Amino acid sequence: MAALRARTVLLTGSNRGLGLELVRQLLGGPRPPAWIFATCRDPEGPRAQVSARLHGSQTLSSVSADVADPTAITNAVKIVEAKLSGTGLNLLINNAGIYAPVTLDTVDSEEMIRAYKTNAVGPLLMAQAFLPLLKKAARESTDKGLSCSKAAIVNISTVMGSIERTAESFFKPVISYRCSKAALNMLTKCQALTYGETGILCVALHPGWVKTDMGTQEADLTVDTSVRGMLSILPILSEKHSGSLLNWEGKVIPW
Amino acid sequence: MAALRARTVLLTGSNRGLGLELVRQLLGGPRPPAWIFATCRDPEGPRAQVSARLHGSQTLSSVSADVADPTAITNAVKIVEAKLSGTGLNLLINNAGIYAPVTLDTVDSEEMIRAYKTNAVGPLLMAQAFLPLLKKAARESTDKGLSCSKAAIVNISTVMGSIERTAESFFKPVISYRCSKAALNMLTKCQALTYGETGILCVALHPGWVKTDMGTQEADLTVDTSVRGMLSILPILSEKHSGSLLNWEGKVIPW
Ligand SMILES: NC(=O)c1ccc[n+]([C@@H]2O[C@H](COP(=O)([O-])OP(=O)(O)OC[C@H]3O[C@@H](n4cnc5c(N)ncnc54)[C@H](OP(=O)(O)O)[C@@H]3O)[C@@H](O)[C@H]2O)c1
Ligand SMILES: NC(=O)c1ccc[n+]([C@@H]2O[C@H](COP(=O)([O-])OP(=O)(O)OC[C@H]3O[C@@H](n4cnc5c(N)ncnc54)[C@H](OP(=O)(O)O)[C@@H]3O)[C@@H](O)[C@H]2O)c1
Repeated sequence: MAALRARTVLLTGSNRGLGLELVRQLLGGPRPPAWIFATCRDPEGPRAQVSARLHGSQTLSSVSADVADPTAITNAVKIVEAKLSGTGLNLLINNAGIYAPVTLDTVDSEEMIRAYKTNAVGPLLMAQAFLPLLKKAARESTDKGLSCSKAAIVNISTVMGSIERTAESFFKPVISYRCSKAALNMLTKCQALTYGETGILCVALHPGWVKTDMGTQEADLTVDTSVRGMLSILPILSEKHSGSLLNWEGKVIPW
Repeated sequence: MAALRARTVLLTGSNRGLGLELVRQLLGGPRPPAWIFATCRDPEGPRAQVSARLHGSQTLSSVSADVADPTAITNAVKIVEAKLSGTGLNLLINNAGIYAPVTLDTVDSEEMIRAYKTNAVGPLLMAQAFLPLLKKAARESTDKGLSCSKAAIVNISTVMGSIERTAESFFKPVISYRCSKAALNMLTKCQALTYGETGILCVALHPGWVKTDMGTQEADLTVDTSVRGMLSILPILSEKHSGSLLNWEGKVIPW
């Protein structure tokens, strides 16, 4: 199986759940990146304690980034840029996300906007802000075509953002979440069409239904299985996958 | 050809463009509704002058409603409810929309939120607010199944909200618009799944590329052709169309 050869990786929402497990498995893999920028809202906060265990690592850098705050994103770029001292960023994983158990009856304007800001606008702003570093990585690479080892934006989306498949999981209406993730899927397609020519692969990934705070313990998959799946498909992605929504096993999900 | 038998219709953004032409053709049709609530942001404003010509009509009621303002929506419901004096609302047409020529390079958080508020959250809030009147219309009707003559929510969307078909029109990136309309398409599916059992049909319509302020004079279709098309398909819609995106000729557009 192909291995991910990304030298530099940045993740959002990496203090718990899927984000934290992505950091763990990237660090523990056969060919760990030279730099992992594990960003989260509050690296000093109570919910970030668990990741402190990983802090011994030389390759791991903990950076503050609230993806709903444009200024925080700009500050994170400066920190990352300084650490990279002239090299590019190979892989941006937009993993941070929020989820509220609202229905069409109970959702309001504020909740709609809150979910959109974090789940759709956040990934857009992150990609905008880190674009110069992603482009640099693409230019530095001698690889042909598109790949996650060269330069890529991976948006962690969900099958709940698939309009086609809404009925299957509508026992959980989660309107604000579904609408924001459908928008994230559209964003991913627009990013693929815009950034493809500069050598950046853009893809949306559904991690499966996973046992995290968001997924609850009723979920199908452990974080280990989900993240192992996602990390095993990243190395095989190419231009033919750019602009798609794939699940953790690499299967295409319809829009 | 079947005729629309909706007794009461409410439209948003009806002071110009497609909204105004929808009002005109509904009023001029063979079987005009008993009540048309033509809502717009500012019924007294300069851009509403043109609709003043229609004001002689007994069936037309001009109501103020900024769909990005929850309080304005609540006020509009009160006015409409009073005029309907106990009867329901058959047809809600969420037509108001905004469009900005932004790319992934130029779009910012504010523009993303602005477009989402008007194009996705507005239709959600309108449907929430008018739901009791729509349900009343559904209960009052003796028609079987779902129809626009009985009770329906029509969300004016666009092929630019189709993720599948993004590449075709990407010479106009309009990121904030595309993301908001993809979310509107998801909303429409969620509305169909939620409101179907209470007898309300929910559909998204693409009017075509139309010569309005938004579509510009370069567009393919006149407002007359587009609106004639949309109004001729409304009467033939049934439960089999609920939760779909159709164009002005009734063809299904993929998500
Ligand atoms: N779990 C599932 O079953 C499942 C299924 C489909 C898709 N997903 C997607 O997978 C991703 C990760 O989900 P998860 O299950 O790991 O969720 P989780 O356990 O609830 O963790 C969410 C993470 O996102 C972070 N976050 C939220 N808002 C943020 C913001 N404004 N800025 C920065 N970080 C923010 C949280 O940080 P704080 O600790 O600061 O809140 C936390 O690290 C999400 O995008 C989610 O939609 C999950
Ligand atoms: N024209 C096309 O080619 C085309 C193609 C696909 C889809 N559409 C869709 O068709 C619908 C109508 O478009 P159009 O071409 O008629 O556009 P338009 O000529 O620009 O008119 C837009 C209408 O929406 C109203 N509006 C905007 N924001 C509003 C708000 N917050 N509250 C209430 N009303 C608001 C405007 O009112 P003000 O006068 O107060 O601004 C105006 O009446 C839109 O949803 C659009 O996305 C149009």
